[in-house]
Amino acid sequence: MRTGIATVCLSGTLEEKLRAAAKAGFDGVEVFETDLVTSPLSPEDVRALAADLALGLDLYQPFRDLDSVPDGLYRANLRRAEAKFRLMGRLGIETILVCSNVATASIDDDALRAEQLHGLAQLAADHGVRVAYEALAWGTYVNDFEHAWRLVEAADHPSLGACLDTFHILSRLSSGGPDAAGIEAIPGEKVFFVQVADAPKLSLDVLSWSRHHRVFPGEGQFDLPGFLGHVARTGYNGPVSLEVFNDTFRQSDPERTAVDAIRSLVSLEERTAQRLALSGGTGAPDAGACPPAGSHPSAGSYPVAMRLRTLPEVAPPTGVNFVEVMSEGGAPLTRSLERLLAQLGFASRGEHRTKPVSLWTLGGARVVLNGQGARGVAPAVSALAFDVEDAVTAVARAVQLKATPVPRASQAGEEVLQAVWAPDGSAVFLCQDARWMREFGEGVHDDASRTPAGSSTPAAHARGEAPAGGAGPASSAHAARIDHINLAQPWQHYDEAVLFYSSVLALTPQPSLDVSSPAGLVRSQVMQTGDQAVRLALNLAPWGQADSVRGTVQDTFAEHIAIEVPDLVTHARACRRRGLPFLPIPANYYEDLDARFGLAPEFLGTLRELDLLYDRDAEGEFLHFYTATVGSVFFEVVQRVGGYDGYGAPNAPVRHAAQHLARTEQAARR
Amino acid sequence: MRTGIATVCLSGTLEEKLRAAAKAGFDGVEVFETDLVTSPLSPEDVRALAADLALGLDLYQPFRDLDSVPDGLYRANLRRAEAKFRLMGRLGIETILVCSNVATASIDDDALRAEQLHGLAQLAADHGVRVAYEALAWGTYVNDFEHAWRLVEAADHPSLGACLDTFHILSRLSSGGPDAAGIEAIPGEKVFFVQVADAPKLSLDVLSWSRHHRVFPGEGQFDLPGFLGHVARTGYNGPVSLEVFNDTFRQSDPERTAVDAIRSLVSLEERTAQRLALSGGTGAPDAGACPPAGSHPSAGSYPVAMRLRTLPEVAPPTGVNFVEVMSEGGAPLTRSLERLLAQLGFASRGEHRTKPVSLWTLGGARVVLNGQGARGVAPAVSALAFDVEDAVTAVARAVQLKATPVPRASQAGEEVLQAVWAPDGSAVFLCQDARWMREFGEGVHDDASRTPAGSSTPAAHARGEAPAGGAGPASSAHAARIDHINLAQPWQHYDEAVLFYSSVLALTPQPSLDVSSPAGLVRSQVMQTGDQAVRLALNLAPWGQADSVRGTVQDTFAEHIAIEVPDLVTHARACRRRGLPFLPIPANYYEDLDARFGLAPEFLGTLRELDLLYDRDAEGEFLHFYTATVGSVFFEVVQRVGGYDGYGAPNAPVRHAAQHLARTEQAARR
Repeated sequence: MRTGIATVCLSGTLEEKLRAAAKAGFDGVEVFETDLVTSPLSPEDVRALAADLALGLDLYQPFRDLDSVPDGLYRANLRRAEAKFRLMGRLGIETILVCSNVATASIDDDALRAEQLHGLAQLAADHGVRVAYEALAWGTYVNDFEHAWRLVEAADHPSLGACLDTFHILSRLSSGGPDAAGIEAIPGEKVFFVQVADAPKLSLDVLSWSRHHRVFPGEGQFDLPGFLGHVARTGYNGPVSLEVFNDTFRQSDPERTAVDAIRSLVSLEERTAQRLALSGGTGAPDAGACPPAGSHPSAGSYPVAMRLRTLPEVAPPTGVNFVEVMSEGGAPLTRSLERLLAQLGFASRGEHRTKPVSLWTLGGARVVLNGQGARGVAPAVSALAFDVEDAVTAVARAVQLKATPVPRASQAGEEVLQAVWAPDGSAVFLCQDARWMREFGEGVHDDASRTPAGSSTPAAHARGEAPAGGAGPASSAHAARIDHINLAQPWQHYDEAVLFYSSVLALTPQPSLDVSSPAGLVRSQVMQTGDQAVRLALNLAPWGQADSVRGTVQDTFAEHIAIEVPDLVTHARACRRRGLPFLPIPANYYEDLDARFGLAPEFLGTLRELDLLYDRDAEGEFLHFYTATVGSVFFEVVQRVGGYDGYGAPNAPVRHAAQHLARTEQAARR
Repeated sequence: MRTGIATVCLSGTLEEKLRAAAKAGFDGVEVFETDLVTSPLSPEDVRALAADLALGLDLYQPFRDLDSVPDGLYRANLRRAEAKFRLMGRLGIETILVCSNVATASIDDDALRAEQLHGLAQLAADHGVRVAYEALAWGTYVNDFEHAWRLVEAADHPSLGACLDTFHILSRLSSGGPDAAGIEAIPGEKVFFVQVADAPKLSLDVLSWSRHHRVFPGEGQFDLPGFLGHVARTGYNGPVSLEVFNDTFRQSDPERTAVDAIRSLVSLEERTAQRLALSGGTGAPDAGACPPAGSHPSAGSYPVAMRLRTLPEVAPPTGVNFVEVMSEGGAPLTRSLERLLAQLGFASRGEHRTKPVSLWTLGGARVVLNGQGARGVAPAVSALAFDVEDAVTAVARAVQLKATPVPRASQAGEEVLQAVWAPDGSAVFLCQDARWMREFGEGVHDDASRTPAGSSTPAAHARGEAPAGGAGPASSAHAARIDHINLAQPWQHYDEAVLFYSSVLALTPQPSLDVSSPAGLVRSQVMQTGDQAVRLALNLAPWGQADSVRGTVQDTFAEHIAIEVPDLVTHARACRRRGLPFLPIPANYYEDLDARFGLAPEFLGTLRELDLLYDRDAEGEFLHFYTATVGSVFFEVVQRVGGYDGYGAPNAPVRHAAQHLARTEQAARR
């Protein structure tokens, strides 16, 4: 599949955009007119630069408001078009995108439109170029692809074809637009160009939705593999090019955005190949998306010419192998963190043989303290490690998805661990086992249970019932495991992060949620495996605080590791005895909790005494508490009762406010 | 009018919110439940703090999902309500807001709802509190205020009344909701609370619109004076309280947001008084907004009890008196700016008698260079001065609108100039004349014409026609004036800026526009007087660049002063002879211009030779050019031909790209 990207997707000058697209590995680009007009490069310069970069110039766009106009205006439009055709000659671009008229259309007459398109196509032919006609979703008269295709058919000129854009087609589905399966009625050689964009499903006017909220494939909710399957079945074998208008991408680093973009196409290519294989390759389209029989007589009649590359197949990760926290070795905050881990019940398993790195475990939960942080760097989550079946294949797949390997030096005899960088600058390790633990202390045996800590107390804590009992601290520690990890994301990289974790790690995004905090709304996005063995919560910090990078100590940017234990109350008591600094919870919270749930007085007293938080839904109960923050890291301890599958979202504002207060008080003491 | 604000409008902790509301001068607040639940202050602490601050606690909110439920759930809801009624007793709050059910409603029966509301009201009465029932726009069964009022009437309990919220009522107008005039059918004593919010008109689902995009009155598009007029005519005399969910306000400094908020209410109060006066006070509502006769038999039957304060009346400004640029006296960049002014044709009118401040004029355009900037501060726009009829009244009005006066020391015998701070940190001077000019040089006479420079060449530059001729440079200089000033605004303060300039200066916002730049989309918002004597363009910089304040040298944050001249080509030639550094315009721009407009070759050659930009619309033509940027200031020179009323928006991306390139090159040379 030939990959492409419109220059409008990226920030910067035309030259910066071309270099970024080439560096990310795109085959070609669409030159957006404004980018050329505002560039100091001549058309010849652009052509030479693209050739140097081995980047195809696959499309010039857009040409607006040609059709459905009176003759005088049409002739002026042809003059305007001719100037662009000449320009394309100098650029060496063969195809121009012509959109259906939105501004000056005044005559609703398909015969006239076909005639005007024919005239344009003939002029294009005279200049050795060709026209790809596209229906904009908000075109005055022409606003769906089937209408545009009827016009192309009626105009009947070899230099005129269709441009298919996923946004314009899929955004219209909910307002009566034609099903994408109808694409298969178009002969592949008459599809001149294909543009792809994803988008979240918004009930916003289609123009604003298109101009500001498009995202790269896999970052939104459109069925793009289904769409591209229809395109492939027409026999089309041209560029599949991203055209994404997005306020955020427009102001982010273009090289970084280009990597996000190519990853989205590589992943789309794989998903399309899988979909086509499932539906029998060139055979009939998926039953669910199929139009009424007979409505597209030529559907499925072309062979799939597009070569769709696939990636090494991997299963989703089966667990969290370890979490690494980086800090300056021996610094006061590092000592605080070590004390905190001990107070939480973690056992120190000693230092690494050759590096100032220590291992701490609590049952199956492993935290690696990496003391190689630069001077003054406060503790911060620096790496997550996941259990996978085949680490080599998983890393190979990640690299094909344009993840950058983390350079690592290993001494002789040490386990070789492999990792790639996540978009937020943390490392993602892919591990087959925990043999690396032997390099710590006296040689640690991985004796901890890896079975999730199930709860034996499904009873609800309704008024009059006793609080959950449970096993003692020893068994509690043994059954502990990492429940989830909460990472903060700058707003600029949110969509990119969702795509990264879903394509590279096969985590599935859950519906996102806005949580209020004293510093603004925090968007919470959970990514998890189907069996919940791996749960990752991404917190999108408010814009005002989002220039940050990993390791900055900021309230809404603090990140945490949540440990699941089978008996939270007992565990909390033990932590308190060891002097653990709990995050203090205000008394008002417990009054509200009682008003909402009507809890047994003794149980409510226990919650209040231990600064525990509580939630309940139809499936079960959730108990949890938080520690104080050290650097930008804190810990949560949770107990899930019954089938409770959430994260205590109603308690998140309480947590944020308490942390805000702690930070304010800390600042005042300084 | 009693003013109020919901704590949810502001960022921070409950204590920070209460202090901010009191400092801004609000009479009372609505306590939002989450703010109390997450606060370490006990209800008694909150009550004492509010008393200390002389701040009323006017409402506790929200209580959700009471009605339309089976009996078991209803009884649980009553138990939940009772806990809140007790809490209100401790807080000393008399009224609670109860929203129509959105989550658990399962029985659509008005008789049952009335019964359930009656039961709740009786329980409230037992606890000495009362219930204000509100229809949420997305309530399952109850989603318009007339329905909610019918239920309140049917429940018929003295402790039950209606809460009217502008958002829930006005957002439903376009989807068949009842006209706000129907409010007049409700007796004032049964209106227990009034909440106001404005909003831009968006075609977004009403829940997202409400949760993220509400703004303060005057910052959106709702007819709030009309609404409040209806409320006043019921005889209502309780709090008019802001309830604005806005992602930006939620993360901005609460003290600042509170000032913006109270300004919006003061202005709304004035506009409501004007509207009521126009429509005859307690008489019939405005004809346009009136429901069919007889549909609201009690309409207009109550006297207006609400005392609506008005402000000193002022006319819009009649011109720009001067623009001040602040910089470090004698610094190299200050010298560059002086050179630039001279090259532009400005005459130096000497130094101020007592201060290191110099005056430069070009016809009626006056630029004051204030050399009192701190060391290292690059030149930046620091003040705008407007011509007003009565400066004392204008300043008094601004201060009543919570603008802060700029402290200024004047020497004996000097003109006393008065100014207030604008939201972006620049000063706004309000001047009756230009006698202050006498304090410069040898005593400057204000001999410059104040008449706008009309153009005598309305002919279009169509192919084959000659370019505009015009008067010589001498007359050109005499007729020069300030056409517009372009100020950059951080995104956080955009809505606040629109309200400030419209309420304090009586400028009218025009439809806003997004312009592409290499660093992202730039939102452009023009504010102007009806006669266009004053034109202010606010540029909202992309988020990623918006932490800045006045004076930071950043591309998309650079600001400019646009001078209108009657003959741009002649003026540009003179500037070029004087060595003015023009912003270079790429050749591609002229090719595109020719393709779009078909210009006379000679004219196109002139544009290209002089780095001029061009635009044309149905009303006329626009020629303009830009200078290089010095510090964060640059200049534009414009000529308006015929009735052209815009700002050359199609050329804005060219300007942004050229400035981006200049900045990149400058950075590379360093």
